[in-house]
Order: sequence, then structure tokens, then C-alpha cells
Amino acid sequence: MTTIEKRDRRYVEALCQRYRRWGAWGADDERGALNFITPEILVRAVALVRTGRIVSCALPFDENGPQSGRFGGRHNPIHAMLQDGGDIAFGAQDHLDELRFTDDSVTMPLQCGTHWDALAHIFHKGRMYGGHGVEYVTSKGAARNGIEKVADGIAGRGVLLDMPRYFGVEWMRPGHAITSEDLAGASRQQGVEVRSGDIVLIRTGQIAQARAEGTWGTYEAGDAPGLGVDSAHWIYENEIAAVCTDTWGAEVQPNDTDEVFQPLHLILLVNAGIHLGEIFDLENLAQVCAGEGRYEFLFVAPPLPITGAVASPVHPLAIF
Amino acid sequence: MTTIEKRDRRYVEALCQRYRRWGAWGADDERGALNFITPEILVRAVALVRTGRIVSCALPFDENGPQSGRFGGRHNPIHAMLQDGGDIAFGAQDHLDELRFTDDSVTMPLQCGTHWDALAHIFHKGRMYGGHGVEYVTSKGAARNGIEKVADGIAGRGVLLDMPRYFGVEWMRPGHAITSEDLAGASRQQGVEVRSGDIVLIRTGQIAQARAEGTWGTYEAGDAPGLGVDSAHWIYENEIAAVCTDTWGAEVQPNDTDEVFQPLHLILLVNAGIHLGEIFDLENLAQVCAGEGRYEFLFVAPPLPITGAVASPVHPLAIF
Amino acid sequence: MTTIEKRDRRYVEALCQRYRRWGAWGADDERGALNFITPEILVRAVALVRTGRIVSCALPFDENGPQSGRFGGRHNPIHAMLQDGGDIAFGAQDHLDELRFTDDSVTMPLQCGTHWDALAHIFHKGRMYGGHGVEYVTSKGAARNGIEKVADGIAGRGVLLDMPRYFGVEWMRPGHAITSEDLAGASRQQGVEVRSGDIVLIRTGQIAQARAEGTWGTYEAGDAPGLGVDSAHWIYENEIAAVCTDTWGAEVQPNDTDEVFQPLHLILLVNAGIHLGEIFDLENLAQVCAGEGRYEFLFVAPPLPITGAVASPVHPLAIF
Amino acid sequence: MTTIEKRDRRYVEALCQRYRRWGAWGADDERGALNFITPEILVRAVALVRTGRIVSCALPFDENGPQSGRFGGRHNPIHAMLQDGGDIAFGAQDHLDELRFTDDSVTMPLQCGTHWDALAHIFHKGRMYGGHGVEYVTSKGAARNGIEKVADGIAGRGVLLDMPRYFGVEWMRPGHAITSEDLAGASRQQGVEVRSGDIVLIRTGQIAQARAEGTWGTYEAGDAPGLGVDSAHWIYENEIAAVCTDTWGAEVQPNDTDEVFQPLHLILLVNAGIHLGEIFDLENLAQVCAGEGRYEFLFVAPPLPITGAVASPVHPLAIF
Repeated sequence: MTTIEKRDRRYVEALCQRYRRWGAWGADDERGALNFITPEILVRAVALVRTGRIVSCALPFDENGPQSGRFGGRHNPIHAMLQDGGDIAFGAQDHLDELRFTDDSVTMPLQCGTHWDALAHIFHKGRMYGGHGVEYVTSKGAARNGIEKVADGIAGRGVLLDMPRYFGVEWMRPGHAITSEDLAGASRQQGVEVRSGDIVLIRTGQIAQARAEGTWGTYEAGDAPGLGVDSAHWIYENEIAAVCTDTWGAEVQPNDTDEVFQPLHLILLVNAGIHLGEIFDLENLAQVCAGEGRYEFLFVAPPLPITGAVASPVHPLAIF
Repeated sequence: MTTIEKRDRRYVEALCQRYRRWGAWGADDERGALNFITPEILVRAVALVRTGRIVSCALPFDENGPQSGRFGGRHNPIHAMLQDGGDIAFGAQDHLDELRFTDDSVTMPLQCGTHWDALAHIFHKGRMYGGHGVEYVTSKGAARNGIEKVADGIAGRGVLLDMPRYFGVEWMRPGHAITSEDLAGASRQQGVEVRSGDIVLIRTGQIAQARAEGTWGTYEAGDAPGLGVDSAHWIYENEIAAVCTDTWGAEVQPNDTDEVFQPLHLILLVNAGIHLGEIFDLENLAQVCAGEGRYEFLFVAPPLPITGAVASPVHPLAIF
Repeated sequence: MTTIEKRDRRYVEALCQRYRRWGAWGADDERGALNFITPEILVRAVALVRTGRIVSCALPFDENGPQSGRFGGRHNPIHAMLQDGGDIAFGAQDHLDELRFTDDSVTMPLQCGTHWDALAHIFHKGRMYGGHGVEYVTSKGAARNGIEKVADGIAGRGVLLDMPRYFGVEWMRPGHAITSEDLAGASRQQGVEVRSGDIVLIRTGQIAQARAEGTWGTYEAGDAPGLGVDSAHWIYENEIAAVCTDTWGAEVQPNDTDEVFQPLHLILLVNAGIHLGEIFDLENLAQVCAGEGRYEFLFVAPPLPITGAVASPVHPLAIF
Repeated sequence: MTTIEKRDRRYVEALCQRYRRWGAWGADDERGALNFITPEILVRAVALVRTGRIVSCALPFDENGPQSGRFGGRHNPIHAMLQDGGDIAFGAQDHLDELRFTDDSVTMPLQCGTHWDALAHIFHKGRMYGGHGVEYVTSKGAARNGIEKVADGIAGRGVLLDMPRYFGVEWMRPGHAITSEDLAGASRQQGVEVRSGDIVLIRTGQIAQARAEGTWGTYEAGDAPGLGVDSAHWIYENEIAAVCTDTWGAEVQPNDTDEVFQPLHLILLVNAGIHLGEIFDLENLAQVCAGEGRYEFLFVAPPLPITGAVASPVHPLAIF
């Protein structure tokens, strides 16, 4: 990579074209870079399991989540009880023989907490991954690239890149952009070789910061550390299957581009077909990786197959 | 097991007491029989993966699900778009540089589709698993035994027992109760030995019937094949960690007990601490197991950690 | 009116043009025929009140409503408690001094029960009332003709036309189309003169039928009695301000037109700017009118000013 | 009224007993002080209409409302489109002949905006109005005193008491408690005599303050001007049918009592059976009253008859 004069619309467009994979797995493909995870790769990922320890990478889904409704009406999950202990106590179920039950319901924007972006989530110049137009996402949901199209996944080899550890800080500061060199450097420092089909989890530490400071601060749609536009090279060239981060939007905020909002969503998701995971809680994972002295594991993070959804909440598990 | 005169309230109560595990893993335990899945058992389960094939065991979450609202106000998922292709086409996002996005939300009873029952879902004589009273489940959710308490799971060795195959039928008829002998027989016939810590998936074929007949029929809260009360012996004695079925409520309907509704929910969930999975789609799994000639696999089915929830939708994966 | 050869697309289009009022109250008008209700007319309507008797014209909003989700995902209201008596009993509010409270929430399609259609609800050839295009209704709601634009209403002189009484039947049969002659005849028979600015309530008796038969039957989006396309003449010429009926969709089903679904929605709502009220419960009203021997009253039916909504639930009151 | 030493638990309890009306309209009464509005009173209220001018007293129901979720999970209305202009443009309704439609849905806590508290909303010492216990409000809603029980109302003579005008300020400051003397004084100053069966609307100006300052500030569950505990005398003795204010909770915040939260909710709603209206927008009304030189009008504010609801959104209309 050479010195960049200006990361403007033209620059991003060049990367979009350079890293476009439309048709790479057939004209009808709706799985994108997840195709890199072959059965053989999954079998090798499974072989990483040695201690049987499971680490959850999800935030709790509740009213303490990061959403305030500031962005696009996204609110924290609203959990309501349809039947609870009071109903039992008051005899509301006395028509049932012996058994008593509780029941509940949730209302949640699909990106309110730990979630996968579907390939139908982002459009650029009127096109989503595969070149499909906006007419494929109506009030009835996405007719192409919905999250249910990757329902028989997402599982593979997970690799954590712990960037604060690499930079020698507790957490990265908002505005700090991660480059391809940084990703390569962290992988070298951690002694983990990245391979085709890997799911890469990139920790910035912003959730640690929020916990330490007792406030979500700018976490939701505000200033954040994250991937810079030039991280695209490393991610594309290494044939990464999916990228997950611990921030609201994966990318550094403010973006390190002029004229383009969230450029990596255009380059990686729309063009390279890479699913993005956001609001993953990587704090425990980072501690376990450091403790075990290894940054690779079996990673299983199945989205709910909500038909036509452009995202899905997920409970991702790292298994050591 | 001896001939049963009458399976009444007293009979079920005797089984509840005989199979009670409260305190077996400490007074504060909220994981129940999932404790049987030790790290070693998970490591051995992982070793079952040989071909890298993943089989989804979830129904699509959409308006074609089995719920009509007949039982307890449970409806199929309501998926709504917060932003869609039309908004993009009409310029609603033209304040953004280059990027355009879609966004969505869901409202769903947590047991509307493929789901885990939490240990806080069922009460008997005012007590749930561990002996906690109804006051622990309020409008704010479950303060004990909520689904988030098993968030770093649920994964282990999965074993499918394909009961229609065992009985030599396409699908079991509503009202047909599965016994302990049937479970043992199916396991023998399939050549799979059941062990402590297994997650057992029991197929009745009722989803196959619904598909063949083009209607959910009595699937929702109506007549169904399923586990009879005497299946409790085999499930308890084999130290099964969790039981999943392809029906609305796991148990045969009408129940084969007098005076007690859903007796296994009382015996197994409330007393033996066994999480129940319901509305699992086991049709593809049955075909793959028959094709591969083996009925054991790595099974990963992580509930969403919705704080205080008494159930969770789940996308269960069987990995071969 | 002459004998009609064929009520086809061309016929309806002719009526659309003949009865178009776009611009009649200014290019920016968003109130349509409600403009006929002048303050003077409202003052005269108020003078109709003599006994102080109030008659509700709303169905209860609950799970017994007519919606099954068959049409467009419309379901009955989902009412959930955020705090209830059980929470109080269990001490969940013991941090409060003395006071205890209950609290609740609702999720409802705005047309699930008794409701007003906003002028933004219907489009014909890409245009709604006033000629505005589809781009004015996005995921954020209606930027033109939303229900909040008539928030300082809807009140005026109400006139009930009790069609089953006119026809001498208990209720009109599905498929029976009401004509302009019928409306004029009923008004004559009942001794009530219809005037400019009236809100006309047209009873078919379909709710009475549903109650008598204990089932909603075809009420929701199925066969129904109702207004025929030729009722448009009478409604337009009499300068009716709004039309309310006791059926799901106001119009006879199947429609008495070829090639056009719900033609009056096009003629009256889109072109003549007439708000339509649907699923109004006119059973008590009919009894009271018969008892009082008069079919006119003060009618107050204020929609909720939900910003950008294309309909609103309403509790309409007839005051005698 | 004598000088008060201390307004503590005992003081409030004395007022609760003094002003208790349980049984005043029969043991089964669920309408409370609304019974004061006789048909004759409504007829006289109607006679107040002279100009036909309608003034809305509702806030818009949208995301700009006062709720942040801080109190009890109450959020602003969530409005979602089920079908919108984009769907029409993209041909999603091309199976329909000619007609195209939009459709929408709302999710809202029933007290998120302008609303009535039902008599089932508040409990004191385990009892609500009429003496009914907490067991009458379960997850299925209120079996007694639900808002649907006053469905054939609420309409009568409205009287605005414009307190900032009385005090000679733009708006009352948070913490300023309105007394019985203040209410009597304002009524005298405005030249309006209050009578049995009146619906009294009490303006504090807090909404004006929020608008002027561009923020809701402490409006939601925080410091506010409002009724002091000693306003109970005037309200009770004048046989007021219902009380509406322009604040979140009607009462001064912090409350002017020790040991009791929201004492008037206990005295007036629980004991005297008085429905409370909250978050009413009285700004336009105050201007119109001042302009017309009269503070009385026909007031129509029908709650939605949501079965078992403990509150209802409402669009109140003052008609002059």
C-alpha cells in the first residue's frame, strides 16, 4: 500500500470494484464470503477444541443495552410477560391440572444488541451484494440476501485480534482507525496465522470503556474506534469469511474517508460479500485467549432464520 | 417398570419426588441437568465432527409458523421493516454519503417457533426448579432460572432418536405415547449408545405430517404424538442433559395421565432440571442421519441471553 | 342513473374523474371532504343533543376482534402488562412510598378494530388524494394526508342509515350491494334529511350476524354486504363529509365491479377526499335510533394524532 | 383548612378515608366520579357550544414525545409501516386490481402520551377503587375498573384553570404546588364557576416550558409543577368528575408529602374515584380561552375501549 492522498468517493469506489465478488460463487449466490468456510475448514476448526470451555460473546439482551433510539428508532429489547408468577398466585391458571407456567414475548430491532448484518442490510448506488436492486427489500422483508439464506451456519474457525493488547492500551480511543498493517501486526504478535475461511473477531475495547465509565457514551452511532477503510486490503486478501467487532458499526467513527459514510460496509459487505457482526462482547474472550495463550477457537454463531430479515440477533459461542 | 394401574396425580407426584435433583449441583444452581455436560464431554462431542456438514434444526421464523394465538396469545413472529428499499428509492436516506441501508424489527412470543423452555417456565405446587416460588417471576421477568443463566451453552453431543423409523411409519399418529422402552429400543436399533450429558432429539414426524397435509392441523396445543409420562425413567436414568422434540409441547396429547397436564414438564423440567426444546425441525436431520448411517453429532443450540426470559428462540445446529 | 352495461375499469375511472375534488380546498389541502363540516354545521349538530345519552360505536379492542392475520398481517390488539397486581403482591414496587401502580402497553395494526382510514391509506395509479405520489409514504409514515392532519376533528352531525331495517331483514347478506337509491330510500323511510357536511353511518348488520352466529365468518376481508360502486353518486352529490360502516372494508364483497378492487376507495377516498370509517359497531346505535325515533345526533370520533399514520383506531361517540 | 403541621402518611390516610366514595354509586360501580356527569349535565355542557371551534388537547403521538424509558420502560410510540409507497412502487401489490394501499401498526405504552389513567391504575394498601384487591389485575389485564368500563364517555363540561395566568408567570416552576385556594382563586379570576360533574383541566405550562427550552428536561417522572396534596379538598368538595393536567403525573414533584408518593393518586383516584388525565397539551386551549374570554366548553375525550387496560391514549377535544 502506498501513501494515500485522499480517501474520497473515487478512492472507495476503486476499492469496491477491486474487491467485488459478485458472481464468484454463481449468479444466485446469497452466502458471499461464508462460502470460504468449506466443510474441510470446519472440520479443522473443530479440531481446535481441546478444553471444552465455552465463552459467550453476546451482550445481555435487555434494557441496559446501548440503544437509545437516537439512530433510526433502534431501541433496546422490550421484554413483556404474557403469564408470570402473579398470575399463578392469583389463580389465573387454575383451569389447568397441576401444571402452572410462565410465558413471555420480546419486541426488538434486529440490530439492537449482538447481531449479524445480513447481505441485504446495505446498498450502494442502488445495489446490494450480487447486484440486486432496492426493489428486493420491501415491507415484507428481503427477497434476496436475507439472513435466513445463511441459516445453516455460521460456524468455523474463529480468530480474535485483540487490538488494545497490540497497541498496549486498555481500550482504543474513539477515532482510532485500524489498518491492514495493524491487523497483520496483531496477528503476528499473538502468534496466530490467519487463513482463508476464518471468522475474525476484532476487539477495540469500547465495551470495556463503557463498563469502566458506567455509560455507553458515544457507543451508539457516535465516535468510536474501529476498522479504517484501509483494513479492507488485509480482510479481502486473506479471504476472511466474516468480520465481527465489539462496536456499534465495526468502522472507525468518524470514518477516515471523505464523502463516504461507513465505506467498509460498501467495500466488504456489498462487494466482497462479507457478513459483519456488530456489538459482540469480546471482553471475556480476550481474557480467556490471553489466559490460554491462543487466539483461535471453534466459533459458532447461528443467526435466527427470520425469513426476509436484514439482520439477526445472535448468541455467538467461542469453544476452546 | 411394572404394570401401571393408574397414572394419576399421586403417580406423577411420586415420579416428581423420585427424580428431583434440587440441590444436586448446589443450592444456587440454575443450570440443572446441563451440568452433566462437562468440558470433557463437550470435547468428546466435538470429536464426532468428521465431514463438516451442518444441519439446521429450526423452523423459519415467519408468518407461516404454527401459532394462531389459540394458546395464551402466542402468535407467529411479526417482522417489520424500519427502513427498506422503497425508502432508499424515495431518497429518505439522501442525507447519508453513498451508503444506504435497510433495517428491521421483530415482535415475537419467545415460544412461537423453535425454542428452549427455561427452567423458570414451569411451576408445580408453587415451585420451579430449585424450589423457588412464584414471586421470582414478575412482569420484569424471571429473577431465577431465566434463560440467560445457561447463556454459555447449550452445546454437547446430540443424539437423534427417529421414532417413526423405529415404529416403521411415516409419522407417529397424534395420541401415540413414547415410552422408556421405545427410547431404548430406538437407540438400539439405530446403533447409538446414549450417555450421561447427551442432548437427545426425539423425532415424532409431526412436522412431516403438517407439511404433507399442507396444514398445521392440531399441531398448536392440540392432539400430538410425543413423550408419555413413562419416558421419564429412561431420560432420568441416562442422565440426559436436555430433550428436544419436533412438537409444540414435547409430550403426547392428550396426555397419558389423569388429573395432570403435561406431567413430564413437572417431572423432568421442574424436578430433574432438564431443559426442553420444542418445535425443533428434525426432518432434514433424520434424512442426514439415515444417509450418514449415524445418529450422533455435535449439537450447538445457544439461546439468546434475554435477561429474565422464560424461553428463547434458538437456531440449533447439528454438525457432522 | 341509467342502466349500467358493465362496471369495469373504464367505468370506475370515469367516476374517479367526475368526483375528483383535488384542489377544491386549495392545493395543500389534507382534510378533504371534512372541510364540508363548517363551524356553523358543527354548532347545528350540537343542537341535536337533547337527552344527553351517549352511544359508543366501537368494538372492544381485544383478542376477540375480527382479525386473524389473513389480510396483510393485521392481527387483533396485543395487550401486555408492564406492571400488574402480581408485581405489587410480590413487592416489586416496595421502593415506592405507599402508592402501587399497574401499567400496560399495546401493539396493534391501526386498522385492527374500529378505525378511520386516513387519506394516505389508498393510492390509485400512483396517486393519493391531492395527487401526491407514493414517495410520500415511506417507512417513516405519510408525509402528506396522514391522520394527524385531521386531528382537530372529527365531529359533526351524524346520520345513521339502518339498511337492514330499510330492507326488512335482520342483516344484509354478503354480496348485497347498497345503491344510491337505497341510501336515498332509507333516509326517506327514516325521516331524516341528509345535508352537506353530514357524517353518514351505514349499518349492514354484519356484526349482528357475527354475534348471532358466534363467529366472524367471512367478516375479515371476505364476503360482505356493503356499498356498491353506484352509491358514489348519492354520497358525492350530498356532500357527505365522511362515511362509516360496520364492515371490514365498507364496500360490498365481492365488489360489484370488474377489474377493480374496492372501487369506492378510489372514487370516494382518493378522489372525493372522503374519510372512511370501518368496523364501527352500529348495533346499539341502531337500537337507540329506533327507540328515540330519530336518526340524527352529534357524532364525535377523534382519531389519535399518530404522526404520519395512515389510519387510526377510534372510539366514536353518538350523543343524543 | 387549617395550618398543616406535617403532611405524612397519617395525614394522607385521613384524607383517603374522608374522601372515600366506595359504594357511593353501588358496590359494583366502576365509573367513579364520572357518575357525576348526568345526562342533564351533558346537555347543559353541549349548550356551551357557540362558535363550533374545536381545540385539540393531545400531543402528537410520535418519537418526539416525552418518554425515554426511564420510568417503568415507558417509551414513545413505535410506528411501523406494514405496507408503504415503496411497496406499491416495487409492485408488491400488483396482484390487486387498480387499488393500492398503505398500512401501519403501532406499539405503545398506554401512558406514553396524552392519556387517561383508569381506576385500575393505582392501588393503596392492596386496594383499588371500590376496594378490589391486586388479584384483579393480572397479565390478562384488569378484571375490574379497566378503562373499557367508561367507554361510553368521557364527555361533559370542561373548565380550564390556567394557573400560570393566575400566578402571572409564563409557566409554573417545578416544585410549585397548587392548593385548593389557588384553584378557587383561578376560577374566580377567570370568571368561571365550577359545578358538580365538571371536568377540570389544570394548566401548569410545563409543556410550554419544554417547547421554549427545546427539551423535555425533567418532564418525564422528574421535577414538575402540579397539584399539591391540599388541592384534594377543592376537587372533592366541588364534585369534580375528572381532572386533567399538562404534566407527566398531575401532582407536584417532588410531592409535598413525606412518606407518600403521589398522594393525590391515592386520595382522588383510589378513594374518590376520580379519573386523571395526564400529558394533556393545554397550550392552544389556554390561548383560545383567553381569546374567547371564557374558560368553559364542551369537552369530549373518549378513551379507546381496550379491554382490561389500565390506561388509554386519548385525543381530547374542547369544543367552543
